[in-house]
Amino acid sequence: MRGGVRGRLEEGVALHRFASELYPICRSITGAGVRKTLAVIRGRIPLVVHEVRSGTRVFDWEVPLEWNIEDAAVLDGDGRRVIDFQQHNLHLVSYSEPMDVVLPLEDLSPHLHTLPEQPDWIPYRTSYYRRAWGFCLRERDRAALRPGRYRVQVRSSLARGSLTYGELAIPGRSREEVLLFTHVCHPSLANDNASGMAVATALAEWLALQPRRYTYRLVFAPGTIGSLTWLKRNESRLHRVRHGLVLALLGDPGRLTYKRSRNEQRDIDRVAEHVISARGSVIPFSPYGYDERQLCSPGFDLPVGRLTRSVNGGYPQYHSSADDLSLITPEALSESLAACREIIEVLEQDGRYLNLNPKGEPRLGKRGLYGALGGASPAQREETMLWLLNQSDGTHSLLDIARRSRLSLAGLATAAKELEQAGLLKALDPGPSSVKRGTVRRRRPAKIRR
Amino acid sequence: MRGGVRGRLEEGVALHRFASELYPICRSITGAGVRKTLAVIRGRIPLVVHEVRSGTRVFDWEVPLEWNIEDAAVLDGDGRRVIDFQQHNLHLVSYSEPMDVVLPLEDLSPHLHTLPEQPDWIPYRTSYYRRAWGFCLRERDRAALRPGRYRVQVRSSLARGSLTYGELAIPGRSREEVLLFTHVCHPSLANDNASGMAVATALAEWLALQPRRYTYRLVFAPGTIGSLTWLKRNESRLHRVRHGLVLALLGDPGRLTYKRSRNEQRDIDRVAEHVISARGSVIPFSPYGYDERQLCSPGFDLPVGRLTRSVNGGYPQYHSSADDLSLITPEALSESLAACREIIEVLEQDGRYLNLNPKGEPRLGKRGLYGALGGASPAQREETMLWLLNQSDGTHSLLDIARRSRLSLAGLATAAKELEQAGLLKALDPGPSSVKRGTVRRRRPAKIRR
Amino acid sequence: MRGGVRGRLEEGVALHRFASELYPICRSITGAGVRKTLAVIRGRIPLVVHEVRSGTRVFDWEVPLEWNIEDAAVLDGDGRRVIDFQQHNLHLVSYSEPMDVVLPLEDLSPHLHTLPEQPDWIPYRTSYYRRAWGFCLRERDRAALRPGRYRVQVRSSLARGSLTYGELAIPGRSREEVLLFTHVCHPSLANDNASGMAVATALAEWLALQPRRYTYRLVFAPGTIGSLTWLKRNESRLHRVRHGLVLALLGDPGRLTYKRSRNEQRDIDRVAEHVISARGSVIPFSPYGYDERQLCSPGFDLPVGRLTRSVNGGYPQYHSSADDLSLITPEALSESLAACREIIEVLEQDGRYLNLNPKGEPRLGKRGLYGALGGASPAQREETMLWLLNQSDGTHSLLDIARRSRLSLAGLATAAKELEQAGLLKALDPGPSSVKRGTVRRRRPAKIRR
Repeated sequence: MRGGVRGRLEEGVALHRFASELYPICRSITGAGVRKTLAVIRGRIPLVVHEVRSGTRVFDWEVPLEWNIEDAAVLDGDGRRVIDFQQHNLHLVSYSEPMDVVLPLEDLSPHLHTLPEQPDWIPYRTSYYRRAWGFCLRERDRAALRPGRYRVQVRSSLARGSLTYGELAIPGRSREEVLLFTHVCHPSLANDNASGMAVATALAEWLALQPRRYTYRLVFAPGTIGSLTWLKRNESRLHRVRHGLVLALLGDPGRLTYKRSRNEQRDIDRVAEHVISARGSVIPFSPYGYDERQLCSPGFDLPVGRLTRSVNGGYPQYHSSADDLSLITPEALSESLAACREIIEVLEQDGRYLNLNPKGEPRLGKRGLYGALGGASPAQREETMLWLLNQSDGTHSLLDIARRSRLSLAGLATAAKELEQAGLLKALDPGPSSVKRGTVRRRRPAKIRR
Repeated sequence: MRGGVRGRLEEGVALHRFASELYPICRSITGAGVRKTLAVIRGRIPLVVHEVRSGTRVFDWEVPLEWNIEDAAVLDGDGRRVIDFQQHNLHLVSYSEPMDVVLPLEDLSPHLHTLPEQPDWIPYRTSYYRRAWGFCLRERDRAALRPGRYRVQVRSSLARGSLTYGELAIPGRSREEVLLFTHVCHPSLANDNASGMAVATALAEWLALQPRRYTYRLVFAPGTIGSLTWLKRNESRLHRVRHGLVLALLGDPGRLTYKRSRNEQRDIDRVAEHVISARGSVIPFSPYGYDERQLCSPGFDLPVGRLTRSVNGGYPQYHSSADDLSLITPEALSESLAACREIIEVLEQDGRYLNLNPKGEPRLGKRGLYGALGGASPAQREETMLWLLNQSDGTHSLLDIARRSRLSLAGLATAAKELEQAGLLKALDPGPSSVKRGTVRRRRPAKIRR
Repeated sequence: MRGGVRGRLEEGVALHRFASELYPICRSITGAGVRKTLAVIRGRIPLVVHEVRSGTRVFDWEVPLEWNIEDAAVLDGDGRRVIDFQQHNLHLVSYSEPMDVVLPLEDLSPHLHTLPEQPDWIPYRTSYYRRAWGFCLRERDRAALRPGRYRVQVRSSLARGSLTYGELAIPGRSREEVLLFTHVCHPSLANDNASGMAVATALAEWLALQPRRYTYRLVFAPGTIGSLTWLKRNESRLHRVRHGLVLALLGDPGRLTYKRSRNEQRDIDRVAEHVISARGSVIPFSPYGYDERQLCSPGFDLPVGRLTRSVNGGYPQYHSSADDLSLITPEALSESLAACREIIEVLEQDGRYLNLNPKGEPRLGKRGLYGALGGASPAQREETMLWLLNQSDGTHSLLDIARRSRLSLAGLATAAKELEQAGLLKALDPGPSSVKRGTVRRRRPAKIRR
């Protein structure tokens, strides 16, 4: 799956294909679109789907009425559908209330939204928390509307129902969790966020392939109200979240961007910077963006960063019909998935060890760990062991040692296992090592149905 | 008063006029000159004048005998006043003891002080703590003195009396104080320190115009012994000094210079750097200078920085007759006063808030604080509110948030008040907000007579 | 001794002469070579020589059998000594076991070591902890060996005996120690480490010339097992080690190099950087090198840096016969010794003082410490005193003050003594000052026989 350029390309093509399945569905923060989306994802990973009733209090918010849409159009005097939801589901302002009315153009106009600077693109607009209706259209089409009377038909429903989100926990050796969060509320926008959903799904499949140190929790939820709802329902378990990533906008051709957690100095920040800085950029935290807004609010302050390629608002097609399947590429999707895997591999490998023989160097030679004939310079492996032994006083993690020594984390992790097996190091963090220890119960990899 | 370029110029002209009133007075560390100076200032602000008797112990020092001067001259054989205190009060070494003696030039010479490199300038010299007498004169005039006998007449008195200083407290909502200190001991030197006295007086007038958060305490005192005396008499109240500035040398055309407090990391340092760095320079603390020497001695270590334009010793006219009214300009005086006001406005505005709804974002929309229709980017106001809500965990002040977000402090302060009024933020520091709260007693602005 | 360029050169010539005495001795980690070396050094300084029996447990190690060598050679069919230990003691792999055998060239070859890239140099090899034998030779000579049978004669002994090291403590006013460590196990290598032994010996002579604040402990020991043995036998006294230096490779023409302690922020690091940075380089800690490997292992973590010129492995002649007396120069040796002395002088001078009159400035004038007539700028001495008084709150050392004020440490130390004598400062650290205090017992300088 991960083998070489060709494997990468195949993986990217598969990701693009899955994003293409998700793209056409008319999602919103509640309703059938979200349910259908989660069902498609459940075709690959065993998501548990949660329904939370309208009216449920969620901190300062409440779960809104459920919105479903059957059809919507603006018809001219000849009965032609001059703005037609069947043509593109961005044409309707999301959460538009039911409507059937005839209006002159001047009264219709305040309900029409365009992008004057991009006359061929349909904008994306919502009105979740204020009852309203509206249509989005190409500026070019707006300009062509003639004066006269138009019939507005919105066959939507706003009724007590529920908010839907999906969740998958992949148990690891530790109960400490890595939270992976992606939003599922946007309709036909490919990068935002069919790309994120596709990458998160593939990541879950990969995570389940082998036993892991951490428990991985993937949440597929509508933005804002979805993350708030998840936070509310999981508040007592948030202390388990040791690291986390919001995954979104992972298919466009821009470079990878890691946005730091609110604290800016969490382990996930150090690890993601280690992985991303060579191939992308690291940006400071800010309180605008995706669900890090909620996860990193001061009352939670979770150790969660965000991985995107271009950032929200950072590319012209953002929140318009031009964010379509041509914007996202197999190469970009594949690189994003690889970066996620690499971050996770570092999280899994990183940890602190204790030198069990801290007074002076131990005799590596008698343990077969050192070249026998004193020469002019130590081999890389010996240098790696000396760094591990010297720094493993319980305060420095492998990543700390990698930074100080400029040795590779992978080499340090391998040597740490050798030293652990020789009885010279002891792992202090749960599960960084694959050395068998009787007291740690191994769990099987999560079963994943195909 | 603060309106535009013209208002600024008028203000600068008024400052220069007031400095010109103060300039001719022959001040020293005690005596009639200080009393007259404080009386002129009392014409504008209701200074309380304190007299502290000679001999009073002040830490390692004691208040010296009071010095007054009636006349002084050196007369040649023809009775002509070849060095004449009436011509310029810098001609006499300050605190010269009474003298009436006839001497040959060679015996007079050790008592004469000139600036050989500036032959047209009279130096400024003092001998406060060693009984002595002397005259200062232009090197050019010194060179013209012919051999022969000269009569030295110093009609001064050194007698038990008192040291005089002035103080004005302008009460604010909080008992925490901002200390503003300026020295009043220098005779006819315009920049050092008629400028500082003029700016401090105008600042007091401005401070009294409206209710303030902090109590402002202005001290007009002689250098060193004056600040030591004030410290001794106020030792039990020094814990109230939350911020402070030594004000001096504020009229020359050099750029503004903020000198950090001894600690270098106090709030006043951050605030003054925020205000000054765009238009001047910030220099590290050093234990030489003006009364920060005493205020920042290790036994007090007050959070007090210093605002000057050029620094002591940093301009050629320093401590000479060339530091006259032509050296100081209305523009410079006006800019100095404006910088003081701006520092105070930041001190008044800065403060920490607590997000009362810290779990997730609050619903700004239902409180009319957020654009209703979800769009592509938040308005500046909304971004400002999100930063405030995210960072207001009780540890970050508005200035901290301004630095991190690169938003303006003024905008943050305005938005903080809106959020406070909406019940979303609570002010943690006394009085940063103008929101009415029953438990805080408002004091009236100080009455200032004109 | 330290007077000017000529004195320096003479000193350098003397150091080179002493290194030349030490150079020919065939040292190893045990045996007669080390004893003879220590005897030569005892001709100058009163080393105490310790013998530690073979088999003694030393942490994870044990003292090995004692190795002595009488003669060794490889003889060709004609009985000619084609590889001859008598010609150069690097020809024999150190710790070669006794051997008398006749072998064909192909069986001899695995026991022969050369430097193919430096065909005229003999490499230096050891086999301390694995029983083996071998010969080192020039690649050029190796290539000339004809097929045929060779007789290998190694007249060595490996027998229960002891490990030998030398130690000299020069008592100071304080029991706190400065540890100076140099390795004595290398045979005829001039820079590594006849140079270090010569510099350390001369440093001990200089240290004993006058009373010192600290106790100085010089250890001349074999590398690794020697430092481990010293650590084991002195474990209960290691808390006294306040500063330390490993001294090695001090004669080559490269620039001085200070390698930081493991902690990187110890006083010795700040002091050595202060002294070395102008004339050499400061490099980070790494766990490879000389006996800092043991002294800075996590179980000890001593405040010990390392002073060398070129670093181990950092010059082409390293660990070969080309590291001979032509590689080391009088100039380099003399500069190294001077740097050691300067580091020690800073250690001796540095210390924290307490301002006994911390509220305001004390009146320097009445104590004769301040120019009487107020002028335009303080003299350097007065500025130095003001810095000392302002910063001496018990947390800042003289070196801290030197860094902040950019004044010289020597000037600060002199002024601190003046202020201490005036009763204005009190020394907080033992012995930084030469002011007499009844409670401190002065010890005489150590007697050193010549």
